[in-house]
Amino acid sequence: MNLEQFSLYARDRVDQYLNQTLTAYSPADTLHEAMRYSLFNGGKRVRPMLAYATAQLFGEVNELTDASAGAIESIHAYSLIHDDLPAMDDDDLRRGKPTCHIQFDEATAILAGDALQTFAFELLSQPHIQQPVTQLSLIHTLQAASGRFGMITGQMVDLANVGKSIDAQALEGMHRHKTGALIRASVKMGAQSVGVTNEQDLGALDAYAAAIGLAFQVQDDIIDITSDTQTLGKTQFSDEDANKPTYPKLLGLEGAQALAQHLHDEAIAKITPFGNKATPLVELASYIIDRNH
Amino acid sequence: MNLEQFSLYARDRVDQYLNQTLTAYSPADTLHEAMRYSLFNGGKRVRPMLAYATAQLFGEVNELTDASAGAIESIHAYSLIHDDLPAMDDDDLRRGKPTCHIQFDEATAILAGDALQTFAFELLSQPHIQQPVTQLSLIHTLQAASGRFGMITGQMVDLANVGKSIDAQALEGMHRHKTGALIRASVKMGAQSVGVTNEQDLGALDAYAAAIGLAFQVQDDIIDITSDTQTLGKTQFSDEDANKPTYPKLLGLEGAQALAQHLHDEAIAKITPFGNKATPLVELASYIIDRNH
Repeated sequence: MNLEQFSLYARDRVDQYLNQTLTAYSPADTLHEAMRYSLFNGGKRVRPMLAYATAQLFGEVNELTDASAGAIESIHAYSLIHDDLPAMDDDDLRRGKPTCHIQFDEATAILAGDALQTFAFELLSQPHIQQPVTQLSLIHTLQAASGRFGMITGQMVDLANVGKSIDAQALEGMHRHKTGALIRASVKMGAQSVGVTNEQDLGALDAYAAAIGLAFQVQDDIIDITSDTQTLGKTQFSDEDANKPTYPKLLGLEGAQALAQHLHDEAIAKITPFGNKATPLVELASYIIDRNH
Repeated sequence: MNLEQFSLYARDRVDQYLNQTLTAYSPADTLHEAMRYSLFNGGKRVRPMLAYATAQLFGEVNELTDASAGAIESIHAYSLIHDDLPAMDDDDLRRGKPTCHIQFDEATAILAGDALQTFAFELLSQPHIQQPVTQLSLIHTLQAASGRFGMITGQMVDLANVGKSIDAQALEGMHRHKTGALIRASVKMGAQSVGVTNEQDLGALDAYAAAIGLAFQVQDDIIDITSDTQTLGKTQFSDEDANKPTYPKLLGLEGAQALAQHLHDEAIAKITPFGNKATPLVELASYIIDRNH
């Protein structure tokens, strides 16, 4: 499978799983409509791709891999709904469509986000899956990545940094929490879902995930600049951008591109020992720094 | 132990547990301050009392009972933070103190609520506790009670009902979700934490919990009316109250009082088979319909 085929496989698989598990519940039809609206919004499903690609390094993707991929994507969706709220980033559009609080209302968006967080733990705690120790370790990984030590801290630091000048170390710390933690969890949970407990394997995979997680963010900053310049005719470092610290601002565009390349190479070196089976992970790393949207 | 002693025991125990487990994390000091502000706000700890009282029916309260009591209280605290937000009930005061979004800001309140939800699953998924099957069943119970089939649905229905006239059945359905589900989970998790799997015991306890959960809400409505009349000199069914369906409005004050008494008696009948050991649960049921605040 090349990356495009693998991407379609992962997206279809997690979407079908989420579609089946997010069953209707008539006393709360609107809630479920809002949850679905945000969960199926045309996202690239990068995190599920990482979970599936990691699982298949070690054997067959299984039901716990599906639950992991679905749970991670639910956490991701909840975080976007809450980030977009007026009191947070106050965004009206996401992927060209009205954000959840615009499409529904603010109260519904808050509750849909809350419910998507709980839904992640619903998926991982389903009693018909027969490996309680594995399920518990998946839940432990997910809460650590998404909670007060992970994603939520990143969001707090991000909000505190608006309008401030920070150094590269502080910027990296923010991204490691805000997006890095969940990307690392995607890889770790992919491995845990198929029973990997070998510390050496998990360590190599985590180093890979940490590097691509940061590369992903550096590339996001680069895209913001280059896309602005091309599509809006705005200059780099425009006034509007001045409020938010970015890698091109700290390192210059070329410096940021060099960092993304360095992180990419570091990531790939970490998974070389896995051989050909790691091809999807290698291609994912390249996709992350080559993408332009 | 009489009820007052038991109440102090349960409150001290869960507060000490939460105080120890909600450790500091310096990149997110403000987040943790907001979480603590809302978690230690002088709440009555009724849900932890129910969990501890149920656990000691069957043996020794243990570390999983603490984790259950703490997790339930974290879910309860998160739900209050989000309920108080401007887009929801828009409350500035809770227990006479500024609500979380007034004391901090709205973004911090949203994130503190989010983090308290995750914290509940952190407590229940800690790997040093040695009973993964039990832990998984506790997580499953908690997510079902608090998520899209439970508390969050109750909140959605509550918001949809503002300004509408609904019947007693619809009102009961709303309360069974909004507050009843978490009260039932408190009793169930107390039993699960000490390894109870006997369906008959769990069924009797669930019937007890369902009855006191509803009685709790009926009494809340009664207190709203009587407390308004006494302290504010407002008449019953004042204009301000007219927006929200309540039991006294549907059944009259005496009808509501009779319903609370009926639910109390029903609850006590369900736990008679447990004998003297159930005294704290019996006293809790009486407290719920006798309290005036």
